[in-house]
Amino acid sequence: MSSVSTSPRAMGRVILVGAGPGDPELLTLRGARALEEADLVLYDALVDPRTLQLASRAQRFFVGKRAGRASIAQTTICALLVRAARRGRVVVRLKAGDPFVFGRGGEEVLACDAARVPVEVIAGVSSAVAGPQAMGIPVTHRGMSSGFVVLTAVPSDGWEKVLLHLPPGAITVVMLMAIGARAKIASFLDAAGWPNTLPSAIVMGASTPRAWSWIGTLGELAGAEIPADRADLPGLVVLGPVVSLADAVRRATGVELRISSST
Amino acid sequence: MSSVSTSPRAMGRVILVGAGPGDPELLTLRGARALEEADLVLYDALVDPRTLQLASRAQRFFVGKRAGRASIAQTTICALLVRAARRGRVVVRLKAGDPFVFGRGGEEVLACDAARVPVEVIAGVSSAVAGPQAMGIPVTHRGMSSGFVVLTAVPSDGWEKVLLHLPPGAITVVMLMAIGARAKIASFLDAAGWPNTLPSAIVMGASTPRAWSWIGTLGELAGAEIPADRADLPGLVVLGPVVSLADAVRRATGVELRISSST
Repeated sequence: MSSVSTSPRAMGRVILVGAGPGDPELLTLRGARALEEADLVLYDALVDPRTLQLASRAQRFFVGKRAGRASIAQTTICALLVRAARRGRVVVRLKAGDPFVFGRGGEEVLACDAARVPVEVIAGVSSAVAGPQAMGIPVTHRGMSSGFVVLTAVPSDGWEKVLLHLPPGAITVVMLMAIGARAKIASFLDAAGWPNTLPSAIVMGASTPRAWSWIGTLGELAGAEIPADRADLPGLVVLGPVVSLADAVRRATGVELRISSST
Repeated sequence: MSSVSTSPRAMGRVILVGAGPGDPELLTLRGARALEEADLVLYDALVDPRTLQLASRAQRFFVGKRAGRASIAQTTICALLVRAARRGRVVVRLKAGDPFVFGRGGEEVLACDAARVPVEVIAGVSSAVAGPQAMGIPVTHRGMSSGFVVLTAVPSDGWEKVLLHLPPGAITVVMLMAIGARAKIASFLDAAGWPNTLPSAIVMGASTPRAWSWIGTLGELAGAEIPADRADLPGLVVLGPVVSLADAVRRATGVELRISSST
C-alpha cells in the first residue's frame, strides 16, 4: 500500500481595512496594497465600487446592511473570515471609515485570535472627522473647540449620560447614526440647558458625489428636513461653534461647487 | 517708449494634506497624488522622510516644532502659503495626522479665504484613533465603549471641565500631548471619583518603528516611567475598559513582534 502525503496548506490571514469616509481616493496606500493582494473581500455597505475594483483578483462578497434587510450576523462574518484564512486565503475585511470606530473590528480581531488566525488591522480615515471636514467643518479649532466627542445615537449606546453633564459647546459633538434621532437629541439637549442658538449641522453622504448638508441651530435641528432622495444616505449630526466656520471654509475650498448642499 | 507686457501668472493653490499617524503607508492615495504634484511642501515634525520623498519635484521646508526650539509662528506659515500660491505654485501643507484635528488647518484655510487663494483639504488618518489602534486598543468596542472623546492635556484647553462630569469609563478618553501631564490627569480623575483600577495606557510614537507603550491602571499612571530614549516621541494617554483588549489584539495581530513595547 502506498500513501499519498499532501503537504498541509499554508495558513492564510485576515486583513481588516478601513476604506475611509466614501471618496475612494481617501483609502490609504497600505489599504490599496492589501486589496491588490486579496483572494477574498468581504465588504460593507458604503464602500465605493472603485475601491472594490482594486481587489482585481479577489472574490468579493457583500456582507453589509441594506436598508430594510437584516445584515449577515456578526458571528457569521467572523466564521467566514476564519474559515477562508484557514484555507490559505488572504481575506480582506473591507469596512467603511476605520475598522475600530464603530466598525466591530475589535470583535473580528478577537475571533481571529481565538482561532489562531493571523490578522492585521489597517487604519482608515474615519467619517467622524472627515465627514464634517468634507462639509467645511473642522472638529477642532483654536479658541473655539479644543476637542471632540464621537458617539452614536443608538438608544442602547447611552449617549444621553455622556452629553448630560458636558458643558454646552465646550467641545464639538459628532453623533453618528443620528438622523432619525435628531429631534430626540435636540429636545434632550434643550432640556439639559443647551442654548438653542448653538450652531448645528446635518451631514449626509459626506465625501461622496451625493453629499448633502444642512446648517442651522440646535433650536432648528428637530425641524430640519432631509430631501427624500437623500434619505438613504448615512448621516451624522455635528454640534458646536465650529459649525459656524463652514461658510468660510466652503468658500475657500470651493465645496459649494462640488456638493449637492442645501446650504 | 515700448512697454513689455507680461502675462499675469496663473494663481496657484494650497493643499492641506494629512500625513497620517506616522507610517508612510497610512497616507491616503489622494495625499500621495498631491505631494507628487507639489512645487513646494511646508511640513511639520513627525512626518516620515519617505512621505516627503513623494514630493520629488518640490522644494521642502520644515516649519514644525522641534524640542526646545520655538516653532515658526502660525501667522508666518499662513503668509508663506498665501505668497507661494499667489506666485502660481502648488503648495502642500503637510501635517501629521489629520489637518482638522489639532492641526490648525482651519486657521490656514481661513487665511487662504481672506487672501482669495484656492485651498483644498485632504483628510488624514488621525493619531487619536490610529495611535491606540497601532498598540492594540480599539477606541470603540461593543459592550465596552460606545464612543470616544479626544482632548489635549494643554492647560488652556480646559480638559478638566470636560472630564469632570463624564461618567467614568463610559466612553474611551484619548488625550493628546498628555505625557507631561499624566500625573496631573491621574490625580484629577482620582479626585473626581474615577476608579483607580480603570485600564489605562500610554502610547508613544505609535505607527512608527520606535513605538512604545505602557499598559496599566489609572492608579499606576502617575508612576509610569517613560524610557529616556523615547522621551522625544509624541505621546497620548488612553483611558477606558477598551485598554484591556490590548493583550488579545496584540497577540492576534503580532504587534508585540513589531514594536518596541514595554508590555
